[in-house]
Amino acid sequence: MEIFDISLEIAEDMPTYRGRKEKKPRIERVRTLEEGANETRLTLETHTGTHIDAPLHMLPLATSIDQIPLSQFIGPAVVLEIRNRPAINREDLVPFEHFLLPGHFVLFKTDNSFTDLSRDDFVYLTESAATFLSQKSLKGIGVDALGVERNQPGHPTHRILLEGGLVVVEGLFLRDVPQGLYFFVALPLKIRGGDGAPARAFLVRI
Amino acid sequence: MEIFDISLEIAEDMPTYRGRKEKKPRIERVRTLEEGANETRLTLETHTGTHIDAPLHMLPLATSIDQIPLSQFIGPAVVLEIRNRPAINREDLVPFEHFLLPGHFVLFKTDNSFTDLSRDDFVYLTESAATFLSQKSLKGIGVDALGVERNQPGHPTHRILLEGGLVVVEGLFLRDVPQGLYFFVALPLKIRGGDGAPARAFLVRI
Repeated sequence: MEIFDISLEIAEDMPTYRGRKEKKPRIERVRTLEEGANETRLTLETHTGTHIDAPLHMLPLATSIDQIPLSQFIGPAVVLEIRNRPAINREDLVPFEHFLLPGHFVLFKTDNSFTDLSRDDFVYLTESAATFLSQKSLKGIGVDALGVERNQPGHPTHRILLEGGLVVVEGLFLRDVPQGLYFFVALPLKIRGGDGAPARAFLVRI
Repeated sequence: MEIFDISLEIAEDMPTYRGRKEKKPRIERVRTLEEGANETRLTLETHTGTHIDAPLHMLPLATSIDQIPLSQFIGPAVVLEIRNRPAINREDLVPFEHFLLPGHFVLFKTDNSFTDLSRDDFVYLTESAATFLSQKSLKGIGVDALGVERNQPGHPTHRILLEGGLVVVEGLFLRDVPQGLYFFVALPLKIRGGDGAPARAFLVRI
């Protein structure tokens, strides 16, 4: 069983959305082996690193991350490699339409996987792409950027995907994953009332 | 596919090891929908709630959580229900010896699953139990307490299990899980240099 760990490392110097310093985690050792055991306190935002957005992130009175059953975070996935595009539009997806299968995840491997994730001009999903994807009865989508869109006014990409019931996974580390079919697992921390949560994710070849 | 979510909810009022207040998480909303999106900052210790201990928790110069391959956190598991015992000793395990299989996880469902996890007198694994388990080539063990032992001098249970290469998962929510065989997944956050990490875990019937 070949397992691809597609999670970003959590560290104080990890890349954050548009390089924002206030989004860097803090990792403090609060107890040492000399005192009995090594123990650490982690301070981390829910949308830093590899994480999952809950509908509550962008929609009023919506579902929080702890209310989504674990079965929604597990399933078959296709990794699509789409390079040399500043953004992914509907027309970039049409050639792959036969891979956009009900109950599947679609993970986008773009130029983000080969550049600094702190960049402002990361590859994102446009509103037209989100609308197209939301009509395919997918279980969810995943991106190799720290955001699924670049703060577009009104956040249409987020809203369309989350209103469509899709799970949105951001910050996937896909550099070493070949295009193809996989079984996908992405488990968010079960934060009560969370608008999202940090997650650990992997792919297994099927 | 029946999935059991065996993770504790992360909340400011969640139970902590021996009820320690300084181990309670902080969950602060740092941005709201009116400001563009709901976003939260989580402050959480590595050994609070459902979590995995790395060898670095108890052993000098040992492996940290990010250095353990994901394959170590996935595999067949047996849930053993052992009730009405203040601690689990070697002799409590002998009747189940045929379930202690190489490469498997063993998860202990005890009276902890039916009481307050903040209690001082939780059911723990004794040194004799740890020694017995460490000789079975298991992949790991999991407990339904917030610690695998009650701060025994020198932490023999932790040391024996971690030196034996077993993955130690604490804070599993097993109340609703019948004794039996399962497939187990417990994914810790990938904290660089972490002595452990919060995790999300599930079981699937096999």
